Amino acid sequence: MPMTPAALEARLAASLRSEDARGLAGVIDEAAPYDVFEALREWPSASVGDLLLLLPPPKRPLLFAYLQEDMQDAVLLTLPRDAVVDLFERLPSDDRADVFKRLDEPSRAKLLPALAQVEREDILRLAAYPEESVGSITTSDYATVSVAMLAGEALDAVRVSAPDKETIYVLYVLDEGRRLLGTVSLRDLVLAPPHTRVEDLMHREPVFAQADWPRARAAGLIRHYDLLALPVLGADNQVVGIVTVDDAMRVEQDEATDDILRVGAVQPGGRGRLDPARLSLRHASVFQLFRMRVFWLVLLVFGNLLSGAGIAYYEDTVAAYIALVFFLPLLIGSGGNAGSQAATLMVRALATGDVVARDWVRMLGREFLVASLLGVAMAVAVSGIGFVRGGPEIAGVVSISMVLIVVVGSLIGMCLPFLLSKLRFDPATASAPLVTSIADAVGVILYLSIAVLVLGEPQPA
Amino acid sequence: MPMTPAALEARLAASLRSEDARGLAGVIDEAAPYDVFEALREWPSASVGDLLLLLPPPKRPLLFAYLQEDMQDAVLLTLPRDAVVDLFERLPSDDRADVFKRLDEPSRAKLLPALAQVEREDILRLAAYPEESVGSITTSDYATVSVAMLAGEALDAVRVSAPDKETIYVLYVLDEGRRLLGTVSLRDLVLAPPHTRVEDLMHREPVFAQADWPRARAAGLIRHYDLLALPVLGADNQVVGIVTVDDAMRVEQDEATDDILRVGAVQPGGRGRLDPARLSLRHASVFQLFRMRVFWLVLLVFGNLLSGAGIAYYEDTVAAYIALVFFLPLLIGSGGNAGSQAATLMVRALATGDVVARDWVRMLGREFLVASLLGVAMAVAVSGIGFVRGGPEIAGVVSISMVLIVVVGSLIGMCLPFLLSKLRFDPATASAPLVTSIADAVGVILYLSIAVLVLGEPQPA
Repeated sequence: MPMTPAALEARLAASLRSEDARGLAGVIDEAAPYDVFEALREWPSASVGDLLLLLPPPKRPLLFAYLQEDMQDAVLLTLPRDAVVDLFERLPSDDRADVFKRLDEPSRAKLLPALAQVEREDILRLAAYPEESVGSITTSDYATVSVAMLAGEALDAVRVSAPDKETIYVLYVLDEGRRLLGTVSLRDLVLAPPHTRVEDLMHREPVFAQADWPRARAAGLIRHYDLLALPVLGADNQVVGIVTVDDAMRVEQDEATDDILRVGAVQPGGRGRLDPARLSLRHASVFQLFRMRVFWLVLLVFGNLLSGAGIAYYEDTVAAYIALVFFLPLLIGSGGNAGSQAATLMVRALATGDVVARDWVRMLGREFLVASLLGVAMAVAVSGIGFVRGGPEIAGVVSISMVLIVVVGSLIGMCLPFLLSKLRFDPATASAPLVTSIADAVGVILYLSIAVLVLGEPQPA
Repeated sequence: MPMTPAALEARLAASLRSEDARGLAGVIDEAAPYDVFEALREWPSASVGDLLLLLPPPKRPLLFAYLQEDMQDAVLLTLPRDAVVDLFERLPSDDRADVFKRLDEPSRAKLLPALAQVEREDILRLAAYPEESVGSITTSDYATVSVAMLAGEALDAVRVSAPDKETIYVLYVLDEGRRLLGTVSLRDLVLAPPHTRVEDLMHREPVFAQADWPRARAAGLIRHYDLLALPVLGADNQVVGIVTVDDAMRVEQDEATDDILRVGAVQPGGRGRLDPARLSLRHASVFQLFRMRVFWLVLLVFGNLLSGAGIAYYEDTVAAYIALVFFLPLLIGSGGNAGSQAATLMVRALATGDVVARDWVRMLGREFLVASLLGVAMAVAVSGIGFVRGGPEIAGVVSISMVLIVVVGSLIGMCLPFLLSKLRFDPATASAPLVTSIADAVGVILYLSIAVLVLGEPQPA
């Protein structure tokens, strides 16, 4: 098992103190990337810079690629320009484009002319894709073989070209126009007799992604189709690069975290989101946390004021039948809870592709049935208490209100994500918090208008 | 790009009608597993059984492994016993153990004696691990090489043993006692000169999992360390098998879905959970949906009654100052919202390992600061409305209550997951819904007791 981050940190510190370059290279080779990230998380950037310079240049990208983003940016500022240029030329192409995107304009202007033309073009192409697109997680370090090769020749070609590729387990077959003819797995190349033709081994209709798709879609394809890597095509259908399974796992983890935070009424950040490898809850500042939470809290204040307005409208009824107040939190809460359940299920189903927009009507009918059952179950649970606290009339008002509120709340929760997705907004914006406050307000109005109907208008005082 | 599920379904149906075994085998070879699953999802099990029997036996596991669980179980009942035995011997070892676990006792008793001894032992060993453990997603179809081999010999050995292994991209080096000496990647074997010794190529301290760990932990290791497969050790430190990256991705997707549902007050099922590859929201029955949702809804009814009880205790105050009711949903809701935010952040951070139990005190201090800032921001947002609707005294009561309620709600939300995790419960049980109802009740009591303090005891009517 690899060392703990604490043990690793101690060894890194010892190597730095004794300037033991060979020892350090050994530690970096053996250590797992995530542990390096953990071990160095709280070091000053200048010390991490010194550590990086102590390493022989070919080992530096290994260490650099797994630092936290903030740390990477800070470390770059401490390095001499030659070392920065050398590091850039050695970084994996997707990481390189990521780092480049975060540089300010003067730093970019200083760096670009110093790079070789190939790297320069690669950086500019990949850095042009927006943050959440497939292009932003695409690497151009993929290995190709020619369609005319035999399996044995292809293996030899891989041996020559592989050392700096991110994966060689899937090889890409392109035509002269860089269009994708097919893919062949290293497994098939190794297992096939050496004189088999690549043409006969390759998959001719591989799954692919377009560079401008949302990155979550590429990650989902990799999961659904059990892929190790997915080819990425540009606007002209030329191959831009590949997305590898490890990046896909990180994307899905990020997206899931975002969805969970939205259900919990926390606003996930765009960059520097709450992902252990980027922004850690443990290390987030008070202000970062405040910013993630204040948006929904204040928005929901105004949502809750809607409920207050509903109450104000029926103030005389409430004053006349004060026993109604006892059930107010219950009835409001139940509509909101049922609505947030329905919204959560629907947002998740839309996100995983289980449900698509045209299933809408069918889902609506079933949601109505489910919500009615739920409403009846809950009405039964509270009718006894209604009877004890307010007599048969209050029990009736509370039970009828409960059924209606749960049904209406559920339907709101179910429809809102669909509606947002039709309007081309992210359905996840509609998840629990928003639905809760709408369903709450509707609940107040239903409850108190049913009370007026059953109990009669209050007498003027 | 692969065919759509609809086109695939049409081709499968056509092959079945014309009994075109070769055509069918071609379709199955080309099709992506997930599409097969989609295409056959609504077929009667007898037709899927016929389709399976039409395939040559070596192709059958390919089709079978990607059917929905319910479908697999139903199809098995339609097959002749010989075909079942043959299928079992050909299935990947983790899928085989999964299917076996779902059989009833008589079916197991009929099947087991017919299997070869090796398969029998493998099934019994893997099926013994509980549902959510690493062992339950472990496959014993891994490839080994000997420590004494040269790279070229190891490649030859892989060529002989590979065709039925789940992955050959990571090879395992074991000693005579089946203990793990190290791992070597196919990449290194292919790239190394053929006379390099495996001993010099292998990683000696590979990351591993224990079979009785929770499966999410193995999936997390695969993500953190960018692995394609993770070796799994049994109680005696012998190698039991491996977990592959595609299974790890499914596990993380499942776990994220569970967490999201819990935040949204939906109870995820144990088996047949809401995962597109298992139970689809689109295909779930009304009763299944009812069962997933009723638990929390009814539980929260009783939570909300706590708030009602708080109101009942202060009924005279409420009756005397009816303007207080206007702000009741707002103040209750805000405590719940702030609490559910804090709980969501903490549960996620505990789940991803970002925060551990001993960070508790440090997190508490910062949460206090963040919540105070949030409370002040929200108090500012509502004080004006308080002034307009109820005058300066009500504005004061509402503002002071808001700050206190947000702070107390947040602290409850933060502490509950820690507390549950210390008591060795799953912290996710404490997420939003439970915290909301506790924070709601505390909010009522704080609000109304502050009102009594500021406005004075109501005069007896």
